[in-house]
Amino acid sequence: MSEAAVNRQWVLARRPEGLVEPDCFELRDEPVPEPGDGEFLVRNVYMSLDPAMRAWISERGTGYMPAVPIGSLMPASCVARVVESRHDGFEPDDLVLGVFGWQDYAVSDGGGRGPMSVTKIPEGVGPTLPLSALGTTTLTAYFGLKEVGKPERGQTVVVSGAAGATGSMVGQLAKLWGCRAVGIAGGERKCSWLVDELGFDAAIDYKGGDVRKGLKEECPDGIDVYWDNVGGEILDAALARLATRARVVLCGAISMYNEDSPPPGPSNYINLLGRRARMEGFLVFDYFDRIPEAMAELVPLVQSGKLRWREDIRDGLDSAPAALRDLFTGENDGKLLVRVSDELGD
Amino acid sequence: MSEAAVNRQWVLARRPEGLVEPDCFELRDEPVPEPGDGEFLVRNVYMSLDPAMRAWISERGTGYMPAVPIGSLMPASCVARVVESRHDGFEPDDLVLGVFGWQDYAVSDGGGRGPMSVTKIPEGVGPTLPLSALGTTTLTAYFGLKEVGKPERGQTVVVSGAAGATGSMVGQLAKLWGCRAVGIAGGERKCSWLVDELGFDAAIDYKGGDVRKGLKEECPDGIDVYWDNVGGEILDAALARLATRARVVLCGAISMYNEDSPPPGPSNYINLLGRRARMEGFLVFDYFDRIPEAMAELVPLVQSGKLRWREDIRDGLDSAPAALRDLFTGENDGKLLVRVSDELGD
Repeated sequence: MSEAAVNRQWVLARRPEGLVEPDCFELRDEPVPEPGDGEFLVRNVYMSLDPAMRAWISERGTGYMPAVPIGSLMPASCVARVVESRHDGFEPDDLVLGVFGWQDYAVSDGGGRGPMSVTKIPEGVGPTLPLSALGTTTLTAYFGLKEVGKPERGQTVVVSGAAGATGSMVGQLAKLWGCRAVGIAGGERKCSWLVDELGFDAAIDYKGGDVRKGLKEECPDGIDVYWDNVGGEILDAALARLATRARVVLCGAISMYNEDSPPPGPSNYINLLGRRARMEGFLVFDYFDRIPEAMAELVPLVQSGKLRWREDIRDGLDSAPAALRDLFTGENDGKLLVRVSDELGD
Repeated sequence: MSEAAVNRQWVLARRPEGLVEPDCFELRDEPVPEPGDGEFLVRNVYMSLDPAMRAWISERGTGYMPAVPIGSLMPASCVARVVESRHDGFEPDDLVLGVFGWQDYAVSDGGGRGPMSVTKIPEGVGPTLPLSALGTTTLTAYFGLKEVGKPERGQTVVVSGAAGATGSMVGQLAKLWGCRAVGIAGGERKCSWLVDELGFDAAIDYKGGDVRKGLKEECPDGIDVYWDNVGGEILDAALARLATRARVVLCGAISMYNEDSPPPGPSNYINLLGRRARMEGFLVFDYFDRIPEAMAELVPLVQSGKLRWREDIRDGLDSAPAALRDLFTGENDGKLLVRVSDELGD
């Protein structure tokens, strides 16, 4: 690395009001950091943009993480190449997965245990897969559906945000596990993709039709598992159609992330009472010690094409802020990634 | 019985708008019915008035029961004396528990299995106990707390409507099972009763103070089990204070029963996500096959005075409609019962 090398970093400039806009972030030039003893330097290759980022930068933060401070580097999971290492566990050229943030370079000590630790990516797992089909969104679908949704063969699983990275995996796993899968998504194109390409039994277009009516038609015996990615009115419509002993998996609430103050809750929560149903939140981090178990099932499904996915790759670190906004306007088309460098030549 | 004997029946005259008013019911005189083959005639002695009745008579009904039709007898659980029997399982003078309704007399075939069946009351169990300390409200507290709340020793259990028949048992059982019990109730007198007489660790007066502030003070480590009897703002305040992996038991929503249209849901439901917490509805009917197990634990606790309760007994079938309203204005003082007759001479 030359002395003059620069590390561009996106830092949080202001908290968003409503929709997250590109000017919430500011580009800062810093010198490329030097790894100390027990540390290594990585060059980011791909980084993942996810809906939860909206919560990370809000005043409230999330239940599991305080808000990113103004002026701080924006965090993100990344695939990166080790450039220089003074750490026994990592060598130059290793491809690694870690929370390196919106920047060109990062220095790490490998993390420790838990979600912030850095892991080596095995040979043969393509460079984007750890952030897309085998990434956190898929692990979220896997553990959330299996452990919280607890679907049984023949039951009806409904997922909102169904064309998203997590939702599309929820529906496909539901099918593979013997359930009827119904997706809720915005627009005819996304809905066709769910049914024609991914094998969902039905899709309901919330932009083109009435979700309540759609759920009534597609779930005549009620909803056994409702996977909520969006909150708001769609959650309320699903709560109105619960089957007895239904499980509602709270995974996120995109419709709420952009609100300044919390909107009213779902008034049909009261249906949980008559239906003896359950609504439960979960965080994938709690299951990270079981990743090997998930990978044993997921890797063959991904490699054989039984699980399908799409990637929407934006070019250059510069594109990150605008790309993040697209997540909330539905303008992304598959798992949203930013290619930070051509380190891999692909 | 003389030929001229009359059976007074309260029938539903109109559906309530807002608070349930006495003129929602109409008194009708019918002849005392004659039991047919396999049937028996009972004289009601005590009947139970419960918050869920507000839902039974609303247009929507409940998740487990359609609305009581206009012009129909108002249902209620009753303790009654068998007057005449053509049923092998029941003899005159038997004291029985059944859903006989707001009337003087009823004919029954004994029900069948399940919540509508008629059971004989064992000797030595006082005539009101099957409707109060050993009644459905206590069974609700027992199974709901044990099976849905799943409290662990040392955890904090918060219950709203804590001075009510169910809530007071929830708090006392929580204490007996090794938890810290915090009650939310209306008025200083009720709160003192909870702490001084029932042994709750703390009580929060929602009429005299700020529930959010009270919960913050009394639950510094958050709420592990929140038992919701009331819904509305108090539920929202509790959701804001959940501990990680908390369980919210939905038992009823008194604050909603009197509303014409469903009010907004609890916006803090989203805390279930960050806290990996669960909100679950349950109906005590689902546990009726386990009543012997509950009674084995509850009867000694009641008889030894380790579980305490209060009864608010109103006199005469005439008093039922006004007494029901009192349930929702908080003017009852203990488990609300109506003494229908002096059949027992007590």
